[in-house]
Amino acid sequence: MSVFTPVPESVLSSWLQNYAIGRLVELKGISAGVQNSNFFVTTTLGRYVLTLFEGIGRAELPYYLHLMAHLARHGLPVPAPIANRDNEYLGTVEGKPAVLVMRLQGASVMDPDEGHCARAGAMLAGLHLAGQSYGRRQPNPRGPQWREQAASQVRDHLPADERALLDEEMRFQATIETDTLPAGAIHADLFRDNVLWDGEHIGGVIDFYFAGHDALLFDVAVTV
Amino acid sequence: MSVFTPVPESVLSSWLQNYAIGRLVELKGISAGVQNSNFFVTTTLGRYVLTLFEGIGRAELPYYLHLMAHLARHGLPVPAPIANRDNEYLGTVEGKPAVLVMRLQGASVMDPDEGHCARAGAMLAGLHLAGQSYGRRQPNPRGPQWREQAASQVRDHLPADERALLDEEMRFQATIETDTLPAGAIHADLFRDNVLWDGEHIGGVIDFYFAGHDALLFDVAVTV
Repeated sequence: MSVFTPVPESVLSSWLQNYAIGRLVELKGISAGVQNSNFFVTTTLGRYVLTLFEGIGRAELPYYLHLMAHLARHGLPVPAPIANRDNEYLGTVEGKPAVLVMRLQGASVMDPDEGHCARAGAMLAGLHLAGQSYGRRQPNPRGPQWREQAASQVRDHLPADERALLDEEMRFQATIETDTLPAGAIHADLFRDNVLWDGEHIGGVIDFYFAGHDALLFDVAVTV
Repeated sequence: MSVFTPVPESVLSSWLQNYAIGRLVELKGISAGVQNSNFFVTTTLGRYVLTLFEGIGRAELPYYLHLMAHLARHGLPVPAPIANRDNEYLGTVEGKPAVLVMRLQGASVMDPDEGHCARAGAMLAGLHLAGQSYGRRQPNPRGPQWREQAASQVRDHLPADERALLDEEMRFQATIETDTLPAGAIHADLFRDNVLWDGEHIGGVIDFYFAGHDALLFDVAVTV
């Protein structure tokens, strides 16, 4: 269950008056996802998704929202955030930072074939190419520093063979100069769950809340 | 027939390398429209429309393209222009100013019912509200000055009764202070042909190339 903060219809109706997308027709909680509270919002003008951020700090959010806007502007199927009448993406609902995004078509495919993989690869390439002209920068929250911290936190709880494997991997990673690899804005969480398929087309790539600036190869590794 | 300038696939394929939307899959001329050359463009990442401007000057185009982008950013179903890898909307194809926009779903409805009219009204309201925060301004190309010129051009070719009606209307219009009416960015051409319906939802409002800054009432008059 991913609706941690319920939103009454009356609250949303009045909040929507600061948008240009008509009146509320339907509000429905979404059960998928574990990080934030998500809702399908239908108005007289269209279909949107409302997200209330439960854990991400307000200061980190503009990076994600403007990245999604930037990629959408470059023609990629990502959830474009909706600006309110003050031209802002980020608002507040029930005391939480909140954003409305365009609702995309499609559903995940858990057993992708070669065609799906080729299109996911084209999408990743498009994301990396368009990302080169994105002006904001925020480090990958799962970058080298986080990996070292996480490794040292779990190390002592692992059986001996897995601990040896982890130590070997961390030693290997310490020898790589990731700074010399081509870098840019990466999605960093492009699992099958986060790609929606509309027939053979990608209807959307969602969940940009792990994105950050890092080696593009990181994305390839996660996606493959 | 509205393809005035044919575009070879090889030309478009190489032009698309400056975009992040994958490789060309299909290019198809569109027969509707009388002003510009339009094409359906399908790539490995999505479905777009390419427009080559045949008559509109390059200097006027940014007003239209950024207005469409502004309205799309506010969640309205309008064709969002696609930025290339240099972050520009406007390019050149076969020597003509050219833009790629998102392809929208739906088809015109020639006999709208009350429900259609209510939604078209909500759309117009949304367009006017979101338009209030649009920073660029260009006069309505069919404003008072154009109307006077057009009237004097056709006047002498009209039968006596129509000429009397035109004179009466022009005298009446001269008494109205349009400057005191609420104004902003208007579509100025919201005929039934320019609203695409996707079931009961508005899939898109298209053809912004008559838009300009004028009394909002102008839009209401055209739409009704």
